[in-house]
Amino acid sequence: MLPTTPYRGTRDFLPPEMSVRQQIFGTMFDAVERYGYTRYDGPILESAEIYEAKSGQEIADQQLYSLTDRGGRRLALRPEMTPSVARMIAGNVNSLQLPVRWYSHVNCHRYERPQRGRLREHWQLNVDIFGSDNVACEIEIFEVIHEVMSSLGATRDMWVLRAGDRAVLDSILRDVAKIPQDLVPRTMSLIDRWEKMPREKLRAEAEEFGMEGPRFDELAEILASGSEVLSRLPEDVREGSPLVQMMDGDAKDLFVFDPLIVRGLQYYTSTVFEVFDLSPENNRSLFGGGRYSDLAGLFTTQRIPGIGFGMGDVTLADFLETHGLLPEPRTQVDAAVIPVTEELFPAAREVAWLLRQSSVRVSTPLELRKLGKELTRADRSGARFAVIVGDEEWQDRRVVLRDLAHQQQELIAIEELPARLITLHHEA
Amino acid sequence: MLPTTPYRGTRDFLPPEMSVRQQIFGTMFDAVERYGYTRYDGPILESAEIYEAKSGQEIADQQLYSLTDRGGRRLALRPEMTPSVARMIAGNVNSLQLPVRWYSHVNCHRYERPQRGRLREHWQLNVDIFGSDNVACEIEIFEVIHEVMSSLGATRDMWVLRAGDRAVLDSILRDVAKIPQDLVPRTMSLIDRWEKMPREKLRAEAEEFGMEGPRFDELAEILASGSEVLSRLPEDVREGSPLVQMMDGDAKDLFVFDPLIVRGLQYYTSTVFEVFDLSPENNRSLFGGGRYSDLAGLFTTQRIPGIGFGMGDVTLADFLETHGLLPEPRTQVDAAVIPVTEELFPAAREVAWLLRQSSVRVSTPLELRKLGKELTRADRSGARFAVIVGDEEWQDRRVVLRDLAHQQQELIAIEELPARLITLHHEA
Repeated sequence: MLPTTPYRGTRDFLPPEMSVRQQIFGTMFDAVERYGYTRYDGPILESAEIYEAKSGQEIADQQLYSLTDRGGRRLALRPEMTPSVARMIAGNVNSLQLPVRWYSHVNCHRYERPQRGRLREHWQLNVDIFGSDNVACEIEIFEVIHEVMSSLGATRDMWVLRAGDRAVLDSILRDVAKIPQDLVPRTMSLIDRWEKMPREKLRAEAEEFGMEGPRFDELAEILASGSEVLSRLPEDVREGSPLVQMMDGDAKDLFVFDPLIVRGLQYYTSTVFEVFDLSPENNRSLFGGGRYSDLAGLFTTQRIPGIGFGMGDVTLADFLETHGLLPEPRTQVDAAVIPVTEELFPAAREVAWLLRQSSVRVSTPLELRKLGKELTRADRSGARFAVIVGDEEWQDRRVVLRDLAHQQQELIAIEELPARLITLHHEA
Repeated sequence: MLPTTPYRGTRDFLPPEMSVRQQIFGTMFDAVERYGYTRYDGPILESAEIYEAKSGQEIADQQLYSLTDRGGRRLALRPEMTPSVARMIAGNVNSLQLPVRWYSHVNCHRYERPQRGRLREHWQLNVDIFGSDNVACEIEIFEVIHEVMSSLGATRDMWVLRAGDRAVLDSILRDVAKIPQDLVPRTMSLIDRWEKMPREKLRAEAEEFGMEGPRFDELAEILASGSEVLSRLPEDVREGSPLVQMMDGDAKDLFVFDPLIVRGLQYYTSTVFEVFDLSPENNRSLFGGGRYSDLAGLFTTQRIPGIGFGMGDVTLADFLETHGLLPEPRTQVDAAVIPVTEELFPAAREVAWLLRQSSVRVSTPLELRKLGKELTRADRSGARFAVIVGDEEWQDRRVVLRDLAHQQQELIAIEELPARLITLHHEA
């Protein structure tokens, strides 16, 4: 016998789990579509080199599922969607009317040690604007995040959107903290782990790569001052930053400025942001994104800026569970049509057909069972109604409609059944 | 520069193509859900051995995309869904209340030479009943196929469901055509190609593996007689066949009996069926399925029978196109809210927010453009309405609602806007 467990780090979605996943994503699709985002999709297999070039060393070297096809082409299962969508935008740039608003719902694969919030295959929502540098993009993407979170039932005390700007951070390091040019990249990487590591460890690491203790302490002080540091930046840096522009306008409540936000992916160039769960049990980053000044440089000489985010289902489900926001699985059917003898199976199919014409979800039995057993099954499947087809009643083309929620029943002509059932259903 | 084309045999779905794909599958999901089928999903990566054991030599040897993970596990991208679902059913058989009705929407990979109707990655709908041998399953699955086809707009003159029975064919070969036992498997394989190859070639091949000419001619005659041959079969074979049982009842119009239907996949054991396009330009098999007496033998000693079908998007789209049944892509938004100055961007966002609260899909510009240009963009995006936010009107919190379809416009207070727009929308 072979094992029945799925491959490590991947999941089977039986109907109840699948129903939950679909409701969560369906709610999010509706939210982004209200903002005019349209869905696209692409292949799971891509040429391996598009990840090796852009996704960062960790993904390419250790996390990529790669293979060679029978024609000798080196392929990889996409670990993220951005390189694919960059390829698609570049390939269609002449027929697209930029800027465009696109979203996708895709599974991505990374070879990692499975742990809480991290699996090898996960599903994600990607939401992006391509083709504009305007601060209106930042505002809209942040609004979309608020719409998505609120459509899932999350209130503002449950989460926070923190945003920083890589160009601003770069200027903070060079112009305010006076970090020598050659130490800037390693300082950035240090800041990426700023809140996850003890201060003493960070200080030791800084010293190791050549930053003296007093300078480290000064840096820590500057970073702790929050948005205050902005007034100390050169004017062109301040004016060039979409976030700094937003801080004076009506969109300032959409986010909290946080210079410590860096994010690992290489292509982000200015705005970067992360959404955090505020609950004490699950205090962690839920998802994030950022702006890239030139998304598709691998594929075209045309500069295409963009901004967007990707939101994975594993961390999101943890968040929803923590806050009691996970939806219930949907019922299998609205009604079960139950014939009392095998000879009445065709009659039951006829009744079921009638109900389906009115978009009612209906099952009929595949094997003959006693009525009591069949009613129990109907109840367990979540059916609100049972329609019992008996010998005598059927001779008058009538059936018994039983409301399983209210334990009431009535005898009814089959022509009247669909309308009656729908009325009862809407009465709750 | 790297190429922007997707990997050979796979497809990019830009928003218009994705919208068509989603509408087609959405229609089919609704159809199967009216029959009480619930959706499941599983990982794309599976242990390679589950395909090597069951999917047939051609898939395992030549068509499998396989890889070894960094832990040394041999994996494959699923070429079909049945082995995965068998694994899932076997692993959960104690908590499931069999029979169950399940469906899935998955992409499958096969390394093939891309051609009309055949790609390397395709999307398919899988619909199955697990846990019953009853003929009611055959009837229901055939009904579901009719429901799916009719929900897509296909009428009965466009397609036909042909069904055969491997046990019946086996008996035809042994008991009626008197084919020697050891020639039966190769004769089956011959019959699988019966209508695709010239008769003379089939005859030559039969002779090669040891069937004499006169016996071949007799076989051809028997096969040409259609359902007539059934009366010459032993009674236990006739009575054991779900299709033969159906031919006397109210379900006989759901299919055409055709002893030539064999289908290649190894696990089918009795009923096998195929849906054919009847149009002269596209006369070919669209999809098919069958019954397996023991689905999950690789994973459990418990016998789990099943019946179902898988329907790929590539052949289906060809069929719909041939018959003029492809849906139009959905519009991007219902309304475009257009501010006439940059200062009015926040006002436009406020109006858009109001409309979105009423589930209207709305866009606002990301860059300031002249009103005329913006109206042209709105029209091209498929928006039915433009809402123009002008300086003077906004001082009274009023906007201009323009119906782009009817070239009419009115000045309206923003509180009244959502209801008015929805009314106009429903007036068509």
